[in-house]
Amino acid sequence: MSVTVPKGFRAAAATAGLKDSGKPDVALVVNDGPQQAAAAVFTSNRVAAAPVHWSRQAISDGRADAVVLNSGGANACTGAEGFQNTHATAEKTAALLGISAGDVVVCSTGLIGEQLPMDKLLPGVEAAAAALSDDGGAAAAGAIMTTDTVPKQAVFAGGGYSIGGMAKGAGMLAPGLATMLVVITTDAELAPAALQAALREATRVTFDRTDSDGCMSTNDTVVLLSSGASGVVLGIEDFTAALTGVCADLARQLITDAEGASHDIAVTTINAASERDAETVSRAVARSNLFKTAIFGNDPNWGRVLSAVGTTDAVFEPDQLNVSMNGVPVCRNGGVGESRDLVDLGSRDVTVVIDLQAGRESATIWTNDLTHEYVHENSAYSS
Amino acid sequence: MSVTVPKGFRAAAATAGLKDSGKPDVALVVNDGPQQAAAAVFTSNRVAAAPVHWSRQAISDGRADAVVLNSGGANACTGAEGFQNTHATAEKTAALLGISAGDVVVCSTGLIGEQLPMDKLLPGVEAAAAALSDDGGAAAAGAIMTTDTVPKQAVFAGGGYSIGGMAKGAGMLAPGLATMLVVITTDAELAPAALQAALREATRVTFDRTDSDGCMSTNDTVVLLSSGASGVVLGIEDFTAALTGVCADLARQLITDAEGASHDIAVTTINAASERDAETVSRAVARSNLFKTAIFGNDPNWGRVLSAVGTTDAVFEPDQLNVSMNGVPVCRNGGVGESRDLVDLGSRDVTVVIDLQAGRESATIWTNDLTHEYVHENSAYSS
Repeated sequence: MSVTVPKGFRAAAATAGLKDSGKPDVALVVNDGPQQAAAAVFTSNRVAAAPVHWSRQAISDGRADAVVLNSGGANACTGAEGFQNTHATAEKTAALLGISAGDVVVCSTGLIGEQLPMDKLLPGVEAAAAALSDDGGAAAAGAIMTTDTVPKQAVFAGGGYSIGGMAKGAGMLAPGLATMLVVITTDAELAPAALQAALREATRVTFDRTDSDGCMSTNDTVVLLSSGASGVVLGIEDFTAALTGVCADLARQLITDAEGASHDIAVTTINAASERDAETVSRAVARSNLFKTAIFGNDPNWGRVLSAVGTTDAVFEPDQLNVSMNGVPVCRNGGVGESRDLVDLGSRDVTVVIDLQAGRESATIWTNDLTHEYVHENSAYSS
Repeated sequence: MSVTVPKGFRAAAATAGLKDSGKPDVALVVNDGPQQAAAAVFTSNRVAAAPVHWSRQAISDGRADAVVLNSGGANACTGAEGFQNTHATAEKTAALLGISAGDVVVCSTGLIGEQLPMDKLLPGVEAAAAALSDDGGAAAAGAIMTTDTVPKQAVFAGGGYSIGGMAKGAGMLAPGLATMLVVITTDAELAPAALQAALREATRVTFDRTDSDGCMSTNDTVVLLSSGASGVVLGIEDFTAALTGVCADLARQLITDAEGASHDIAVTTINAASERDAETVSRAVARSNLFKTAIFGNDPNWGRVLSAVGTTDAVFEPDQLNVSMNGVPVCRNGGVGESRDLVDLGSRDVTVVIDLQAGRESATIWTNDLTHEYVHENSAYSS
């Protein structure tokens, strides 16, 4: 499954003992080639973790041979010692694989502000390297979980090549921010610049429009590795479309497993003057705690949608706003539409459509409701 | 108490039957002069309620003789009919008091997207007018409550004059947005322009820095009325200082009674390059659901503070950030400081200080934690 579906990749998991639960906490993904082209996007949080600083530099030449990931500690806000620990992890991985440390991407996830126990982590990396196999994708996907309840994997196959991906992320999930880690592999042959362009576009309309709790992580990383092992040389447009599909699949899995969620909500803004306006409006609604608690309570409280829309600078006239919830036009021209009693919010999937009547652009933000379980998970456990 | 402490004011409450609870839901405050100078600030939400549209116009000439307020319905997103209902409420009030409808400020609070039952409201206004008295301030403060559990009142007295204020607001509380209504009276003699300048400055550093849940209301209104009945003519600086004290008092009462709150949190940013930077950083932290749930759980999770700071555009270097929680410097120079175990979050008041080491400005945002009770109140009841 996932990252070992494309030819040319091996993966593995190991248990280093970083988590109190004793579950696997180290994952390793290796690109055996023939090419080692790579691209990545990272959190835009200015307080970035040590592995983000390391990996941004490591991948800047368009090459990465391996990605080593740990759960059980974010290695963020850990100063010079934290960076040295990331460096040591890359060196250890490189020595085990016979590659250069500068071609090793490092990812970490877990509690901010604690040093990683290197006496446990490095033996864990050694165990993972010893376990590498061409069907290790599923094990790797399990080892990067923190508060995730299920591993997230996605695959595209067709046209003689394939794409595989794994992801983790359940809280602090508004990329650009939620300790979201994603590794995507492909055996299609593309140059680093093409990979980077495809990845930017795919993440822009998928992970970047996933907003569970409005909180941006210090560690978010999406890495894309190309082995070229299929021998298929692709145009960037075809590849971007397939990659976007895989990213959208993973992004939806993240929202569905978001901390405490009981509803998956698509907030779509249509007829906006610009795509930016549409995204801004959808995100403002998706970040409203009052909207999110109302959905948790199966309450089609469209006033909370309009009050969020009203805080944006998008082009619209207040008396021309339309809102529908699960297909019922509850607000017409800024006023009362059909009875809110007609809206059934009993199902897990909820669709809110906001019509700005100001243009032709649209965008969707995927979010979830704000529940007792979210408060419980994030108050009872440090993460 | 409150708005009837200054000379020249009468107030009253009545029960019109707008609330299912059967509690008082109409309040009336009248300025008997000798002068009727007035100023106001309103929500910056572009989806503004009908009474906000009406009152913005009514007060634009610097005069207001009366304020009529109702709880039990926001009269927001109610179209032309909603505006006509506000107009009719002002006309009714004016006829009862023998004044001009254009000198009546109207405020409403409650559920968005429902028409007010005018057959109940207008008799309620009549009953309030009949009950007007010079000690009716406390009754009026009670009648504007919605999910508030206690009325909010504050008084300043000294220098031969006084200021009295009442406020309501418990959710959708990030002015600029939370159905926060405030009426402040004074018997000091000031011109409308001076009142407006003093009110802008006082609200800028008090209500505007109160951010309970990041959600801006369609109905927020702060009205300041001056009767001049004390005969005291004041300089604007002295008056602004006294007014700011009354506003700060009311703002703290709003936070303490915010929906479901179990901690009152002051997020102070110091040594910022500008006051705007300090406010931006404090607000980013105050709006982080992960920070707020951690405080609910008595968890001094300073990584969630830094991850919020990192999303802002304020001037700072990540490796120079200091954070203390209730006096314990848990983060020094962007890394690990004193043990988080030293922080005691058992008391209701919590202080978080973020030192940007980038300048000399500071600002505080007052907020509260995110609790099960917040989720419960806002999922179980439409408001």
